[in-house]
Amino acid sequence: MSKKFFDLSQPYYEGMPYAPNVGPFTIKKISQLGVDPIQVSEYKLSSHTGTHLDAPRHIYQSGMTIDQIPLERLAGRCIVINVPKPPFTLITIQDVLDSGLDVRPGDFVFFHTGCGAKFGRPEYFNHPSISLELAEWLVAKKVGIIGIDCSTVDLANNQRQPGFNFPIHHLLLENEILIIEHLNLEKVSSREIYVYCFPISIKDADGSPVRVVGIMSL
Amino acid sequence: MSKKFFDLSQPYYEGMPYAPNVGPFTIKKISQLGVDPIQVSEYKLSSHTGTHLDAPRHIYQSGMTIDQIPLERLAGRCIVINVPKPPFTLITIQDVLDSGLDVRPGDFVFFHTGCGAKFGRPEYFNHPSISLELAEWLVAKKVGIIGIDCSTVDLANNQRQPGFNFPIHHLLLENEILIIEHLNLEKVSSREIYVYCFPISIKDADGSPVRVVGIMSL
Repeated sequence: MSKKFFDLSQPYYEGMPYAPNVGPFTIKKISQLGVDPIQVSEYKLSSHTGTHLDAPRHIYQSGMTIDQIPLERLAGRCIVINVPKPPFTLITIQDVLDSGLDVRPGDFVFFHTGCGAKFGRPEYFNHPSISLELAEWLVAKKVGIIGIDCSTVDLANNQRQPGFNFPIHHLLLENEILIIEHLNLEKVSSREIYVYCFPISIKDADGSPVRVVGIMSL
Repeated sequence: MSKKFFDLSQPYYEGMPYAPNVGPFTIKKISQLGVDPIQVSEYKLSSHTGTHLDAPRHIYQSGMTIDQIPLERLAGRCIVINVPKPPFTLITIQDVLDSGLDVRPGDFVFFHTGCGAKFGRPEYFNHPSISLELAEWLVAKKVGIIGIDCSTVDLANNQRQPGFNFPIHHLLLENEILIIEHLNLEKVSSREIYVYCFPISIKDADGSPVRVVGIMSL
């Protein structure tokens, strides 16, 4: 049996998109070939820049941190649901039911809105978001990780009112359902796939960049 | 069949050890719970701080970069060889033969020197290194990745003479054998294990932090 690998991550590069409440990714050369015998770079980024994993600590003080997440929770069956919804609309329970895909306890549920294909363009930030009723339904289903191919599972940044309090993040993370944002799901839509998403082991961290890899047995 | 997961990575934290030619890992809070609705952190680190993967670009200008490494090369059978050698001595072909472990093309070969248990202590940097003859032998064996539980596969930093040119890095990376440094192999010594080590997808990168995870089927 052979295996096919899929990169479900967006690339990191200077000038890559980032939400206003996080920060950019920058690279500086510490040593350079031609001058020095080795090339070494310095990276600066936030815990929520690019394809990243949210730990419960992102939203509440007693929440589990990145380094406390059991590795067993970071590898699993994933269903990728195709939800090509217009910008700023809500993804609903009905959208999941319409997919015909079976949601089981422990599953990773990734939402393919199509935004991932716009990564790097201004309209990337005009995306749909997960409805509160769908988040409650996913909590009841006891899924393991929720992923999305846009910058947040919550309402788009440019639609938020003062006092906005990240209700979808709260509901999911308080129930220890992990969140992955900025996925690239263009090649795996409407499929079941096995996913590995081990973050960098940063002590006490609220979030971490992560390479998300899907593997399909052929 | 159940699976057991092993974290083969060292943790990232402020004050963690780093080689003088790379740089430290630092964390700054961008937003903080209690004051802000979410916690977001800013990380600064080098491409070769902590448990990391070296791409061939680390050592030569036309070498493959982190984002160009096929995912298939980052998951595979790994043998962990126990080599409890004194500081500054060389790990030899005989050490590998004495292990009784079979080295096959494509294998990941990880060297457990015992240094990983000293991570965070000054003597962590007093480690053995891979001999040139062993590196040539591993190239001939067409292995996929070489890993070690200390800061470099080359001579320890504090033993280098002016003009030192990283001969082991050159030989391995010029033959497209990838390198992982700062592993923690305390729990998997003298064993065969399946390893996943997907780095962050950083464009044109010479290196990347990586979570290295071993999985054993029971």
